[in-house]
Amino acid sequence: MAPDEPRLPMRILGFAGSLRVGSYNRALLRAAQELAPESIAIDTFDLAQVPLYNADIEAQGDPEGVASFKHAISQSDAVLMATPEYNHGVPGVMKNALDWASRPPRGSVLNGKPAAIIGASPGATGTARGQSQLRQTFEFTNCYAMPQPELLVFRAHEKFDAQGRLTDQPTRQLLRQFLEAFAAWVARFKIRGP
Amino acid sequence: MAPDEPRLPMRILGFAGSLRVGSYNRALLRAAQELAPESIAIDTFDLAQVPLYNADIEAQGDPEGVASFKHAISQSDAVLMATPEYNHGVPGVMKNALDWASRPPRGSVLNGKPAAIIGASPGATGTARGQSQLRQTFEFTNCYAMPQPELLVFRAHEKFDAQGRLTDQPTRQLLRQFLEAFAAWVARFKIRGP
Amino acid sequence: MAPDEPRLPMRILGFAGSLRVGSYNRALLRAAQELAPESIAIDTFDLAQVPLYNADIEAQGDPEGVASFKHAISQSDAVLMATPEYNHGVPGVMKNALDWASRPPRGSVLNGKPAAIIGASPGATGTARGQSQLRQTFEFTNCYAMPQPELLVFRAHEKFDAQGRLTDQPTRQLLRQFLEAFAAWVARFKIRGP
Amino acid sequence: MAPDEPRLPMRILGFAGSLRVGSYNRALLRAAQELAPESIAIDTFDLAQVPLYNADIEAQGDPEGVASFKHAISQSDAVLMATPEYNHGVPGVMKNALDWASRPPRGSVLNGKPAAIIGASPGATGTARGQSQLRQTFEFTNCYAMPQPELLVFRAHEKFDAQGRLTDQPTRQLLRQFLEAFAAWVARFKIRGP
Repeated sequence: MAPDEPRLPMRILGFAGSLRVGSYNRALLRAAQELAPESIAIDTFDLAQVPLYNADIEAQGDPEGVASFKHAISQSDAVLMATPEYNHGVPGVMKNALDWASRPPRGSVLNGKPAAIIGASPGATGTARGQSQLRQTFEFTNCYAMPQPELLVFRAHEKFDAQGRLTDQPTRQLLRQFLEAFAAWVARFKIRGP
Repeated sequence: MAPDEPRLPMRILGFAGSLRVGSYNRALLRAAQELAPESIAIDTFDLAQVPLYNADIEAQGDPEGVASFKHAISQSDAVLMATPEYNHGVPGVMKNALDWASRPPRGSVLNGKPAAIIGASPGATGTARGQSQLRQTFEFTNCYAMPQPELLVFRAHEKFDAQGRLTDQPTRQLLRQFLEAFAAWVARFKIRGP
Repeated sequence: MAPDEPRLPMRILGFAGSLRVGSYNRALLRAAQELAPESIAIDTFDLAQVPLYNADIEAQGDPEGVASFKHAISQSDAVLMATPEYNHGVPGVMKNALDWASRPPRGSVLNGKPAAIIGASPGATGTARGQSQLRQTFEFTNCYAMPQPELLVFRAHEKFDAQGRLTDQPTRQLLRQFLEAFAAWVARFKIRGP
Repeated sequence: MAPDEPRLPMRILGFAGSLRVGSYNRALLRAAQELAPESIAIDTFDLAQVPLYNADIEAQGDPEGVASFKHAISQSDAVLMATPEYNHGVPGVMKNALDWASRPPRGSVLNGKPAAIIGASPGATGTARGQSQLRQTFEFTNCYAMPQPELLVFRAHEKFDAQGRLTDQPTRQLLRQFLEAFAAWVARFKIRGP
């Protein structure tokens, strides 16, 4: 890159594990877009477009939503997941999307991709167990998941307003720090290549 | 029950985490139906009927496939899951179905339900990690998951024939023993109530 | 049992995963002893007596502390673990004791034993991840771990007084309910046998 | 570094989760020392020196074995763990050592340290579940655990000879490739710093 060339932000693909329009995790992604440092730009993808994984359907070619999802990941420097926790685990909706993304034909688009997880829930443990299961998947997909910091948004109903805006100042600050750490994490891998 | 009343088998609802028609796990469920002891009868449910979980859709009433799935569970004495492992975890398709099943309106139909897991995969670890994640979910749904024995069908491509029939004799024997243990496990809870 | 025979309480063996004298989890066990319903009595065992697991030492006979620990488990109707969470996992001290207990010569004394987990930590997630790892071990040891209710004591420093007495009334109530549920769980297995 | 300066190998600290002298995992570490590429040199540390974690003892100063262990980690560019799986989890001995290492006074010596896991067991799943639990700990300790490749040595009794030498050629080749990948992983972090 020439020294005077404008420095483009790294592209992050964000997606939420809840399909609910008023989801706290969709709202958390929007807050991440707002609070991201200049070095990254966060695009989002709606997992409602990704159908249930079925290898027989896959054998006939990826459905349009899956092809779009894979393309969006492949064009990104990293992925950022915002996930609720359902039943002590990762939501089926989130895992299902990753199951598609990890598959051929072009190898897995997740391979060598830096990744981070954030999560919000009304409960007290703030998606801790769901995040752990998601990290277990990143081992297999060879994603470079940032280990620390973590962001667990507890008692989410007290942190967002009725319009789904993250209003809790300490959480906004934690999210800002998280995204700065993630920008540095992604840059480390981007510059040197996977 | 009167002493001369015919003893009805307990009803087990089986479902597979893969939607592929030729799935090893669907085949494993069929083998389980064949090898089950007289005290249990295994019905199956096809998770292709269960759409992606979406709380906004749920708020308008369960989709037909979800209502059918919940009804089938509620009418059963126990559940038996046959699951592949995808990306070191439980398949999204399987988890998604459990996410629906765990929800109101009638409380969770999974609450207090005895459960067991079997799994087949072409790989070497035989779904070990996927099964562990699934058990973590049973804690929250308050299912009574049988801890032992386990059934991990390794190198599944060597154990089933081209018609999806479980032909490996040692595995058939292990499955028979597994089902006998599960029948005893279910009976323990059925008789005393949850 | 004859109808007029005095009904003896079931014996529960409790042990804490922290060796610190002022440990919140030791304190939580003491509170459990105080709040237990009449149908159970909780004895405790100090894991400081159990050395690091070493199969070469085991081959020469169990060290005294190990033999005592195994004996105490074998004489109990169930086990109750109070565990902190270290580094997103079960403390090595707790896992090490279970590693010994699961071993021959007399088969595993854990086999078929009802089990429950409680945990306290100063942090926000209240040992959630540590408890999950411990449950994964119970699958192998064939313990019957009560799935629900759970007891996660968050922000433990606000719930105990300087003398290590559980003073937080809501937590005392939750613990009482937990122990009542556990008593019913143990009775289910005790009466019918493993 | 001047271009003509001799390139020193990166220092890796290896330790095994089993204390048994004839342990497959100690043997696997010796094989790793033998098969390591020139860019890394593997030293080993014997966890028998690390006592049970006790915060009261820690408050009086680290025992000698703990101080040695922390010092050895701090002087290394990365850590390599060879671990058996006990009871579907990480051995208490291994976790206990990490519990000490993660503690003050000098911050955690594990912070920002690249890490990798290998494991051998006589069983069929080759320590898969134990490795998963260990990775969960690395999230908290902020270790940079290499996601892929994995090395699971199944049926270890067929892969080592009576002198504890890794004789299985395919496994030797996998281990060589694993160590080359790890050397590249460590170099990525070493050059840029944590």
